[in-house]
Amino acid sequence: MTDLTQAFRELVIETPSWGYADSGTRFGVFPQPGRPRDTFEKLDDAAEVHRLTGTAGSVALHFPWDAVDDYDELRGEIESRGLRVGAVNPNLFQDPDYKLGSVTHPDAVVREKAVAHMLECVEIATGLGATAQSLWLADGTNYPGQDDLRERRRRMLDCLGRVYEALPAEQELLVEYKFFEPAFYATDLADWGSALLTCLKLGERAKVLVDLGHHAQGTNIEQIVAFLEAEGRLGGFHFNNRKYADDDLIVGSVNPFELFLIFVELTAVGRLPRLTIDQSHNIEAKVEAMTLSVVNLQEAYAKALLVDRAALRAAQESADVLGGHEVLLDAFNTDVRPACAEARVALGAAENPIRALRESGYAERMATERETQTELTR
Amino acid sequence: MTDLTQAFRELVIETPSWGYADSGTRFGVFPQPGRPRDTFEKLDDAAEVHRLTGTAGSVALHFPWDAVDDYDELRGEIESRGLRVGAVNPNLFQDPDYKLGSVTHPDAVVREKAVAHMLECVEIATGLGATAQSLWLADGTNYPGQDDLRERRRRMLDCLGRVYEALPAEQELLVEYKFFEPAFYATDLADWGSALLTCLKLGERAKVLVDLGHHAQGTNIEQIVAFLEAEGRLGGFHFNNRKYADDDLIVGSVNPFELFLIFVELTAVGRLPRLTIDQSHNIEAKVEAMTLSVVNLQEAYAKALLVDRAALRAAQESADVLGGHEVLLDAFNTDVRPACAEARVALGAAENPIRALRESGYAERMATERETQTELTR
Amino acid sequence: MTDLTQAFRELVIETPSWGYADSGTRFGVFPQPGRPRDTFEKLDDAAEVHRLTGTAGSVALHFPWDAVDDYDELRGEIESRGLRVGAVNPNLFQDPDYKLGSVTHPDAVVREKAVAHMLECVEIATGLGATAQSLWLADGTNYPGQDDLRERRRRMLDCLGRVYEALPAEQELLVEYKFFEPAFYATDLADWGSALLTCLKLGERAKVLVDLGHHAQGTNIEQIVAFLEAEGRLGGFHFNNRKYADDDLIVGSVNPFELFLIFVELTAVGRLPRLTIDQSHNIEAKVEAMTLSVVNLQEAYAKALLVDRAALRAAQESADVLGGHEVLLDAFNTDVRPACAEARVALGAAENPIRALRESGYAERMATERETQTELTR
Amino acid sequence: MTDLTQAFRELVIETPSWGYADSGTRFGVFPQPGRPRDTFEKLDDAAEVHRLTGTAGSVALHFPWDAVDDYDELRGEIESRGLRVGAVNPNLFQDPDYKLGSVTHPDAVVREKAVAHMLECVEIATGLGATAQSLWLADGTNYPGQDDLRERRRRMLDCLGRVYEALPAEQELLVEYKFFEPAFYATDLADWGSALLTCLKLGERAKVLVDLGHHAQGTNIEQIVAFLEAEGRLGGFHFNNRKYADDDLIVGSVNPFELFLIFVELTAVGRLPRLTIDQSHNIEAKVEAMTLSVVNLQEAYAKALLVDRAALRAAQESADVLGGHEVLLDAFNTDVRPACAEARVALGAAENPIRALRESGYAERMATERETQTELTR
Repeated sequence: MTDLTQAFRELVIETPSWGYADSGTRFGVFPQPGRPRDTFEKLDDAAEVHRLTGTAGSVALHFPWDAVDDYDELRGEIESRGLRVGAVNPNLFQDPDYKLGSVTHPDAVVREKAVAHMLECVEIATGLGATAQSLWLADGTNYPGQDDLRERRRRMLDCLGRVYEALPAEQELLVEYKFFEPAFYATDLADWGSALLTCLKLGERAKVLVDLGHHAQGTNIEQIVAFLEAEGRLGGFHFNNRKYADDDLIVGSVNPFELFLIFVELTAVGRLPRLTIDQSHNIEAKVEAMTLSVVNLQEAYAKALLVDRAALRAAQESADVLGGHEVLLDAFNTDVRPACAEARVALGAAENPIRALRESGYAERMATERETQTELTR
Repeated sequence: MTDLTQAFRELVIETPSWGYADSGTRFGVFPQPGRPRDTFEKLDDAAEVHRLTGTAGSVALHFPWDAVDDYDELRGEIESRGLRVGAVNPNLFQDPDYKLGSVTHPDAVVREKAVAHMLECVEIATGLGATAQSLWLADGTNYPGQDDLRERRRRMLDCLGRVYEALPAEQELLVEYKFFEPAFYATDLADWGSALLTCLKLGERAKVLVDLGHHAQGTNIEQIVAFLEAEGRLGGFHFNNRKYADDDLIVGSVNPFELFLIFVELTAVGRLPRLTIDQSHNIEAKVEAMTLSVVNLQEAYAKALLVDRAALRAAQESADVLGGHEVLLDAFNTDVRPACAEARVALGAAENPIRALRESGYAERMATERETQTELTR
Repeated sequence: MTDLTQAFRELVIETPSWGYADSGTRFGVFPQPGRPRDTFEKLDDAAEVHRLTGTAGSVALHFPWDAVDDYDELRGEIESRGLRVGAVNPNLFQDPDYKLGSVTHPDAVVREKAVAHMLECVEIATGLGATAQSLWLADGTNYPGQDDLRERRRRMLDCLGRVYEALPAEQELLVEYKFFEPAFYATDLADWGSALLTCLKLGERAKVLVDLGHHAQGTNIEQIVAFLEAEGRLGGFHFNNRKYADDDLIVGSVNPFELFLIFVELTAVGRLPRLTIDQSHNIEAKVEAMTLSVVNLQEAYAKALLVDRAALRAAQESADVLGGHEVLLDAFNTDVRPACAEARVALGAAENPIRALRESGYAERMATERETQTELTR
Repeated sequence: MTDLTQAFRELVIETPSWGYADSGTRFGVFPQPGRPRDTFEKLDDAAEVHRLTGTAGSVALHFPWDAVDDYDELRGEIESRGLRVGAVNPNLFQDPDYKLGSVTHPDAVVREKAVAHMLECVEIATGLGATAQSLWLADGTNYPGQDDLRERRRRMLDCLGRVYEALPAEQELLVEYKFFEPAFYATDLADWGSALLTCLKLGERAKVLVDLGHHAQGTNIEQIVAFLEAEGRLGGFHFNNRKYADDDLIVGSVNPFELFLIFVELTAVGRLPRLTIDQSHNIEAKVEAMTLSVVNLQEAYAKALLVDRAALRAAQESADVLGGHEVLLDAFNTDVRPACAEARVALGAAENPIRALRESGYAERMATERETQTELTR
């Protein structure tokens, strides 16, 4: 099982700085003991998850939530924790000016503000050595007639084109889509089709980002993954899980088989795109939730690597409907926890990350250390 | 068309005090100019909607958001604006103690707190002369295994039973259900079946409240309305509209035909239950949005009254599949705006409420008068 | 209202030959009295719908269901009834060879058979003077692992490329997508994104066909329509309506407001694509159902033409959220039935097509004339 | 692991006689080689599945599909194959008379016919020693206005009441519900609420049957299971799996974790209800598909038995959100295939049923033996 160790050694899961902060639903945010009070404490949490799992060596940042005065210092702080900088995420939804949209807004002044923020994020990314801008637009409309759907698209393409032009060669632009929320009538980038079409117009380094919670019920996500990959436009993931809408639950907690099937598609081609976790923890322990997500990703990946590709292909070519399915079941039903534990230990991480976290007293220690009810940066 | 005037004279639509306040999505709340700063200003907005439409004579309250020191005074303020007290809504979701549930919480201390709040609301309702407690439970779990589903139900039934016991004879207990959100794995009262079953156990004055946004995609809401009515358990509505989840948009803005069909079921029996609006306005002008919802309800009701019941029954009895459908289309396709305008004028309200509102300058006046950025009660 | 007469004069709705034949669900087909026994009788029904409505002057054909020995004769029969030939629809799902797919099938022999059938349909279309091949692929898989998703897509692109090559300049290739059914794990063309991407690879005369029943719940169809139109790739429609899945109900019977919004997008640019009805009548009178669909389309179109475009644009440009919405409501709430009746009469059609059909005794006459229980062509 | 052997010894999974016959979608039925030509050959297939798995000792029957002249003989044939008689399923959807409903039909003559068929099935069940009538109503309407929703419910309750009266004490009436299909506007028994309400009116031996494919997207099925069980009204299951609608795929093939969670609820109370498989195999090998479903059920059950109930309860009582979830994950992630194999061998069944089936040549043998293209009974 040294293969798995090697695979884990190359595996980089990005955890999101904002995933360690307090979050909630529109009905309330429940402050948790020990939540980080600033970006540096978020980095501490991210480093803890990496320490436990061995494969969470990157941290995605969100601006202005993670804005600091000195980005060299921030980069140093990240690296000193054994982490790398992940994607840079501009925020185009929180400012009241974005009430009716950012890059799609009817008012050019607002669009300019959005473009300026994105350009600033490109600079921040350059400063930090980040290789991707990860763009989620909350833009959309709540009522038919509120705005012109085509006009909004033209505005968006114009703005994103300007940002793409400014993008250094080493950065990609990841374009995320979302079925609905916060817009409830029409979302400007609602599905992979509209995101891909946007990328095709922008250029080769514009790629689609797939968030597992951003699809209509019943959508076959692994097929979208396969198609985007085949087009060379699979930029990465925002991993989480959902039963209903964009529930932002722990990865693999609703349908672990679906997660496995996504990795079956990824491992079919032997290269992994950017793998970022994006969760919103309302009631659960945050560092533990993130650790569990990383472990669930490791196990899905390990199972996908077990798939007997030759047998799969043979069944498929001979039109053996159930034969191919059974090859996948065989891998999925295998208990990969021992192998994953072994690989983690080989990387210097925890045999059982959840148990190690609980036994370490990290959560209690943070609850004490961070007890001062200082406002979060976010 | 004096019949419609008479129908409108008896029509009581409750607007919700909380619907006038700032609200939003989990991604942000956009403060609006002129939003009310306290309960009394919410009452002013409700009175304005009633003045314009003639049929919004009741206002539902939410506690502790609408808590005041003197409930006699509050009742007087309501009545002095030509309004009545609608349902009283306890809040069992905002306090951090309710993070894992209120009446279903594993900890008896939290359950007692929830019961105490409900009992307090019963007293408030008695003081205000309200005839209903309207109960929405946000209770649920986010992960399989988080709690015991049956145990939670037992706890809930026990707590609600105690509240029901304390309910004066003139008050009803309205039990709302919701498919999901804020709970993302299992909601304790997720559908009309679980709500009705709860009411059957509680007693005759426990009835189900139907919120149009609280169903799975594809659910036939008018059928649920018909069945609850036939069981004598249709307590009332929370009107709004949705395309995706609980979008809380303006009534009738997504599918006005569905709204009409609901009124076709209500008018079939000739008695209307409690009709409350429950919207969450994120980006639109609030008083105008509420006014439009009332107008849309009036029009749906007026169309339903136009249905040729004899022709409908004749088609149904003769198994004329399209004949019955065409009878409904005939009513729906009628332009009832002139008749509604006439009926409103007869009631002393506005011929065209939206135009009257815009021409009155109410929104601008409030924006000025309420400009002090005092914190909302909510 | 002569404008509407002019608009109706140019309006061409295609009714589908197969829509007049017996159909059903997987649980059974209920034979109806008077259903056509062959293609020519289907044409009679289509002609009757056109006679009644004045705007159903085209008939789409399906092969081999509508196969005849002499296509010149068929064309003559069509034209002698005052109709035109609509799109030609190949059948790639009924033959047992297509059990695991047609152009995506793992076996090249089956793929060749599918290509050959499509090429034959191109010839038939040429012979009939048809200007479009309308392609619906039932292709997909039922189980993860059954086949390679990317491989299937490559096979499909290869096969369709060959058909596209053979297409005469006056024919378009319409590529339909469908969310699911009859495939239940992965459908090879499941959404507009995959259909559009296919068309982009094929060439300019490959365009996307939108069937209103082929989307996930909650999908904003009018936005897809707007985007495809903006790309110059909106090939046409299969009109019907659905509450759940691909229910194939009468156009406008579930959400007439959505139908109106689609026409608002179409009339925004002033050109209409191919407008075909595709319904599966299980229990309702077929000719009446088709007539009602045409009438509902006429009314949606007439309402869309009423939209005050200048007011709409003004509201949108001034970020007046509800103002734009109200402009649409104003048009939708208008009773256009009198104007449509007038326009129909001006075209020599029926003032009230449903009543005229019922009074004509057409259904009863066909039930008698076609009583011989000859097998259908289909 | 003798516990599992004991558990398997008591486990009775009913396979459905109709699940071995040809079936398909509305787009076509693909005849398969070796499909049984009559009821007795279906019994042979069921016996083969039992021989391989050791836990499929019962067979559900469907009438009139399985009608024979001599029910004593049929019972003997069943028992001679080592099987028992499962539930008896009346067919109230196939006869053209049922086009607009069976027990809800507007015409009393049709309702009487439906009642008569159900009473006949009660007699057949008595003759066969069956202990349950399993009732699925396809009844519903396709268009608003087509029929009166409340009137239909009254008709249904009246008819079912008469059948329930005639039910011998040893028989239960299982009432199934279904979200939609074949009715596309309103289904008379659309959800567990309406089914349970019906059962409450009928009597104690009327219980709800849960088909895993008959829910809206996102429905939490295990919660429904838990609630019905707590009410003493969980009659049984129709097991299958679905991604979209009522796809009738192999059990556990879409979300095995959900299947596990259902068994976690069932094993929480230590008694299993009737466990029937109901699949519709369109393209896959039928006996293999049924065998795989039984194996998947065995594994879900075995995993549920592994749940550390004490640890689960401890986590739940201490409000340890993730702790309880992790207890479930621990059981689910265990590879129970060796233990299941051992238990099967102890029961005299196959260590690896799928491999044993493939190696036995059963499918090929049946394809030869049953090659005569005699019409199916079905």
